[in-house]
Amino acid sequence: MKITSVQSGVRESREKSLAYIQTLFAGDEFHDTDLVALPEMFQCPYENAQFPSYAEPEGGETWRFCSGLARQNGVYLSAGTIPEVADGRIYNTAYVFDRAGRQIAKYRKTHLFDINIRDGQHFRESDTLTAGDEMVVFDTEFGKMGICICYDLRFPELSRLMTDAGARLILCPAAFNTTTGPMHWELLFRQRAVDNQVFLVGTSPARDEHASYQAWGHSIIVDPWGRVLTEMDETEQVKVTEIDLSVVDEVREQLPLLKHRRSDLYELRVRKKQIFQNND
Amino acid sequence: MKITSVQSGVRESREKSLAYIQTLFAGDEFHDTDLVALPEMFQCPYENAQFPSYAEPEGGETWRFCSGLARQNGVYLSAGTIPEVADGRIYNTAYVFDRAGRQIAKYRKTHLFDINIRDGQHFRESDTLTAGDEMVVFDTEFGKMGICICYDLRFPELSRLMTDAGARLILCPAAFNTTTGPMHWELLFRQRAVDNQVFLVGTSPARDEHASYQAWGHSIIVDPWGRVLTEMDETEQVKVTEIDLSVVDEVREQLPLLKHRRSDLYELRVRKKQIFQNND
Repeated sequence: MKITSVQSGVRESREKSLAYIQTLFAGDEFHDTDLVALPEMFQCPYENAQFPSYAEPEGGETWRFCSGLARQNGVYLSAGTIPEVADGRIYNTAYVFDRAGRQIAKYRKTHLFDINIRDGQHFRESDTLTAGDEMVVFDTEFGKMGICICYDLRFPELSRLMTDAGARLILCPAAFNTTTGPMHWELLFRQRAVDNQVFLVGTSPARDEHASYQAWGHSIIVDPWGRVLTEMDETEQVKVTEIDLSVVDEVREQLPLLKHRRSDLYELRVRKKQIFQNND
Repeated sequence: MKITSVQSGVRESREKSLAYIQTLFAGDEFHDTDLVALPEMFQCPYENAQFPSYAEPEGGETWRFCSGLARQNGVYLSAGTIPEVADGRIYNTAYVFDRAGRQIAKYRKTHLFDINIRDGQHFRESDTLTAGDEMVVFDTEFGKMGICICYDLRFPELSRLMTDAGARLILCPAAFNTTTGPMHWELLFRQRAVDNQVFLVGTSPARDEHASYQAWGHSIIVDPWGRVLTEMDETEQVKVTEIDLSVVDEVREQLPLLKHRRSDLYELRVRKKQIFQNND
């Protein structure tokens, strides 16, 4: 399975960001690939003040653009995230499309990013965004995949539940920053991969030195042994990574962590909602 | 708070291993320290064939030796682990003593180490050992601490439950090997510290080139930001690390992960037994 990671920067307008993504698809990295992964907030500056004006309902301009890209190129498209407006609320929402351009997953970030690090990064997504309340696992021709967004990855419960629901690969469009990136970015992707024995695919926007939020970049793909297969720097880049999903079975057989859990002693369970699956 | 980590090697007999630990306590690293941490299986070769003959009941020779060491030196002692025999079964058991030599915690490894890595490490603790079925958090003058043993650390549920029960520092006597050590040792200690915003103290035996099991060594102390404060190589060493437990509060305030969990969406709960606490 070939994955093309797109670490693009946000342009001056939504239209220019989409046009830029469109031109990238002419590159060799998109020929013969299976899955293209875009970054968190790839068409909108990562600023609370901007989320409302860039927000679109499901089926809006960016959604249609992404659906079309998937269909025209015959690829699965993890369409990063965009601000989604619904019932007067704004969500940080990820859509996934199949090779025919059909939406096969929709996930709204469930853990909002409200941090205040001394001499470091401050941000309060909850000033403008509303949290989703559904976890998502979906079917593909490569098996089940899960999806979460950026700060969500800090919560081991979410990856664990997606794994229990059958995910063998977890997509994570994300925009860490220059405070939390060097501290925890690679660590978090490796740790979720090792604990759950799944592939992790993290896709970040490129850093824009003029933006108020300095993204860490460093888009990454980690295998279930915790090996970093791909890691970028902070610049605009497109990279293809070939992964072998049978490594999931290999590591689970040799180091049977999921089987060795003491489910007689502890239990992690979904409370309010079931995990959504597209074959339910 | 000062922690003295002892990365000792196992000697030819239990008596020689204990005598060696005794001589170490004359060193400067034990003067004015608060907590001494010994390795997993510090008086017994890490071999299934040896566990039965080195096993002792609670209150046996090694237990009395460790209680005496704690009392004579006025320190908390995380007495690594030893094979414990009880009701005809053998456990991999950790004892913790207070400054008066009183046992304040006893923990039996709950996840047995049964792995079979291709061209790498094979081991089946379950051939001779029985798993414990209690999780342990205990009070000290420095606040609550949790304890787990080696392979236990691979299960995020256990550290999470100890954190929820109030642990601000987790002790982990452990003996990774030359296959899993370079892959996952530092990663695991860092990830549990970052996810749970606690200190992690990992204490390994030194490597013995002649032993059937090649311990990774690399005894480690990590702070709640995931910073490695101390990490050894594989040789016999004693190191003192001063830690500031207020960092736990600092990180939890600036990056409020534990508060941001979506307990309305998921719940991790103890099933069979309550977590034991010495003040219950």
